[in-house]
Amino acid sequence: MRIDLNCDMGESFGRYALGQDEALLRVVTSANIACGLHAGDPVVMARTLESAKQSRVAVGAHPGYPDLQGFGRRNLTLAPHELEAFVLYQIGALAAFARASGVPLVHVKPHGALYNTVARDARSAQAVAQAVAAFDPGLIVVTLPGSALEQTARALGLRVAREGFADRAYCADGSLAPRNEPGAVIHDPAQAATRAVQMVTSGRVETIDGSLILLQLDTLCIHGDTPGAAAMAAQVRAALESAGVRIAPLNEDLG
Amino acid sequence: MRIDLNCDMGESFGRYALGQDEALLRVVTSANIACGLHAGDPVVMARTLESAKQSRVAVGAHPGYPDLQGFGRRNLTLAPHELEAFVLYQIGALAAFARASGVPLVHVKPHGALYNTVARDARSAQAVAQAVAAFDPGLIVVTLPGSALEQTARALGLRVAREGFADRAYCADGSLAPRNEPGAVIHDPAQAATRAVQMVTSGRVETIDGSLILLQLDTLCIHGDTPGAAAMAAQVRAALESAGVRIAPLNEDLG
Amino acid sequence: MRIDLNCDMGESFGRYALGQDEALLRVVTSANIACGLHAGDPVVMARTLESAKQSRVAVGAHPGYPDLQGFGRRNLTLAPHELEAFVLYQIGALAAFARASGVPLVHVKPHGALYNTVARDARSAQAVAQAVAAFDPGLIVVTLPGSALEQTARALGLRVAREGFADRAYCADGSLAPRNEPGAVIHDPAQAATRAVQMVTSGRVETIDGSLILLQLDTLCIHGDTPGAAAMAAQVRAALESAGVRIAPLNEDLG
Amino acid sequence: MRIDLNCDMGESFGRYALGQDEALLRVVTSANIACGLHAGDPVVMARTLESAKQSRVAVGAHPGYPDLQGFGRRNLTLAPHELEAFVLYQIGALAAFARASGVPLVHVKPHGALYNTVARDARSAQAVAQAVAAFDPGLIVVTLPGSALEQTARALGLRVAREGFADRAYCADGSLAPRNEPGAVIHDPAQAATRAVQMVTSGRVETIDGSLILLQLDTLCIHGDTPGAAAMAAQVRAALESAGVRIAPLNEDLG
Repeated sequence: MRIDLNCDMGESFGRYALGQDEALLRVVTSANIACGLHAGDPVVMARTLESAKQSRVAVGAHPGYPDLQGFGRRNLTLAPHELEAFVLYQIGALAAFARASGVPLVHVKPHGALYNTVARDARSAQAVAQAVAAFDPGLIVVTLPGSALEQTARALGLRVAREGFADRAYCADGSLAPRNEPGAVIHDPAQAATRAVQMVTSGRVETIDGSLILLQLDTLCIHGDTPGAAAMAAQVRAALESAGVRIAPLNEDLG
Repeated sequence: MRIDLNCDMGESFGRYALGQDEALLRVVTSANIACGLHAGDPVVMARTLESAKQSRVAVGAHPGYPDLQGFGRRNLTLAPHELEAFVLYQIGALAAFARASGVPLVHVKPHGALYNTVARDARSAQAVAQAVAAFDPGLIVVTLPGSALEQTARALGLRVAREGFADRAYCADGSLAPRNEPGAVIHDPAQAATRAVQMVTSGRVETIDGSLILLQLDTLCIHGDTPGAAAMAAQVRAALESAGVRIAPLNEDLG
Repeated sequence: MRIDLNCDMGESFGRYALGQDEALLRVVTSANIACGLHAGDPVVMARTLESAKQSRVAVGAHPGYPDLQGFGRRNLTLAPHELEAFVLYQIGALAAFARASGVPLVHVKPHGALYNTVARDARSAQAVAQAVAAFDPGLIVVTLPGSALEQTARALGLRVAREGFADRAYCADGSLAPRNEPGAVIHDPAQAATRAVQMVTSGRVETIDGSLILLQLDTLCIHGDTPGAAAMAAQVRAALESAGVRIAPLNEDLG
Repeated sequence: MRIDLNCDMGESFGRYALGQDEALLRVVTSANIACGLHAGDPVVMARTLESAKQSRVAVGAHPGYPDLQGFGRRNLTLAPHELEAFVLYQIGALAAFARASGVPLVHVKPHGALYNTVARDARSAQAVAQAVAAFDPGLIVVTLPGSALEQTARALGLRVAREGFADRAYCADGSLAPRNEPGAVIHDPAQAATRAVQMVTSGRVETIDGSLILLQLDTLCIHGDTPGAAAMAAQVRAALESAGVRIAPLNEDLG
């Protein structure tokens, strides 16, 4: 059994610091790095790539909607050709820093509102998958299992890493319970760690209504922008390792 | 005798159209494409790359200061590490569209205030040259002959294309006369064409005070954002061809 | 019989020119001036206010979504408190230039996607109406007759100017036919002029399916960003005047 | 003896939190509120105005260069008419929130690089002073004693509040020692408090080379964006009150 641990990073902007990148780089195996449109800027990107390289953490692009004030969390109705161009732009920008740092770009994971949109909207998913394939068909797409993006990415011949969330409650259809529902977000590190082990070792997750559903995962998302993020991340990793799960980056052996 | 003809392109933004890209692509051999920070946006970049590809015009990145409202024409005091990151960001973004279109990225030409700054400021020139070299040491840097950027780029092992302006008056030291001086900008297409032929065939240019100075050129800049730009460009090209000058892109045989 | 003629203005941005403001200022009685977030910038705003003042055209704020690249034409899911703040910001910014030019701010007309959203979504309409009322309860809100914004604005005690479009086809429910439907946009100036006269003098408009519906109007929108905009505007005005309609700004006598 | 204590506030942006506004509002008498171009956004502005109102702290506009990524700390070569328009825009936007909150706008203090530029450059100072006077000649301009802005503002009939810095070293000419010089920034709260008392009660300050110079002050700047800011601010205020200095806002009785 193996799993990748990924975390969003490089979300600071100019004078504004965000996240606990250095602490999380000691825990995760993949970093999703913001590309300057919903968060991040060129200086932050350069610094984050160097940090990830030092920590031997695999790097990916984390494109989002062009909405810095909304942190990419608001829907913006981009036409498919616009979305494809905006994603290609961001992958290219991030890839330049990877190239300058001498590390490969491994994956692409959409951010925030875009992540949710491409999970359910086939046309937007197609636009994102096309941007990835046009840039480099060897890139791995990180998305929800069963999402529209998983389907379109696989149809284009891209590899897909199916992502789970140890600190989020699931609905019976495998979607995430909305954040504003009671119990949707798990704040207790021990509980998150237990769920992580269950999800990875059993291939199943207990949903918010108590049933068990199948959930094949290649990577677990570790949130990095909450006060206790680094501590929860360390606890999740330790629990997985104790359960005999090997923590390894996506590009090691993803099929 | 041979010369490249280059023109800034892809400077439209969203609803805002600028330039006569289609007409100029029939005349020039190199397109300097805006990268979204002083002009251009991802949708415009995608479209411009496709147009350049159809026209078999070589493409380069045209990075500028992050100042859309000022069109990159105002100085912004970026620290060298900031400038390097902002230029690398822009090259990477543009390169992604080149890659998606299946055309090579050939050159990098700084825009506007940045062009002038790196002509005279060694630290800024070093930052730009490092960004280019870090991305791809095979890229050609387009700059004023004798500029700080020419020096630093060559010191890093980069190839340099020395650029001349048929429609601008020169000072005795080889710099361009400031635009607000009388006679600094040449609006007559016939006069610009005559100067272009003189500059390319004699390796000399007549300065604003009437003397002749040496000027070794690899490329001539064709301005594209004035009403008569396409007509002047066509006349300059025709005059050069009549004088036996071969018009060829930079990557054909630049030493 | 009287009607106001309004037109969007001040939509240029930095180096990017848009519209035919000077020509249209000779035709219209009200100018809706962009506030820098979907179009316009401080320099353009200062210039546009001065032009409107010289032409004795009444000025209003034309706030939009903060999306310059999309020209405010894409939906952006702002929460009501966000929308209220973004609209208040824009009204204040525009009002400063009105104040500096010594002219009163008369009205507020939402732009693009925001115009459509507040026509049908009560919560967004409430947010916009609150921003207007908080800034100045004497301002006039320009919106579609029967829209959510008309209702919420009147409920807050604001005056409302009901707007019609001579160059757009109407559906039977009084909404505008979507632009991409055949016949939705009227390009013939003579036809637009005839419709304008019909709408204003009869209080009715012929819908796209041939029926007649009531349409009480206080102002007609004159589009300014198409090639023949100024010519169509002049023809509409002339036809109205020939039909005995008095062209007068909103603040003259709106109840 | 009386002095105003002012602090920059409302510098958060979207998801990015900055500063300790709530703590500092319990100490200062004037808040300089960012206007959305170098920091702040409409949502932050609305919230900050309400907080200042609750704390009965006087509010002013804190306009800066339009450079969010650089936090307004980098020079940008705006022409005077551009600078005037950008400052007017920001004052108007902030004033709208003050109006909506029912509090008067009291002062204007330029931010960062703009603060330094208008201290020494007469044309830029003139542009800023004109923007203030055009908006409201009753506004108070906060600037360095003896600065170009003090001169131009007074020449336009504006009231001026002369500002001192208890935590910065002074040069013999009354300018601030550059931040990168050793000893230029005072981090010890006790030392800052002692200097504050000396500056306010004696009208003199000890310079970095040990001499005493005259320094007539109306307000002291309290920095708010460092870790110990709130604690230092409280200590400075307590020391001033112990020395018999009355802490009062600028609009109470500034001549």
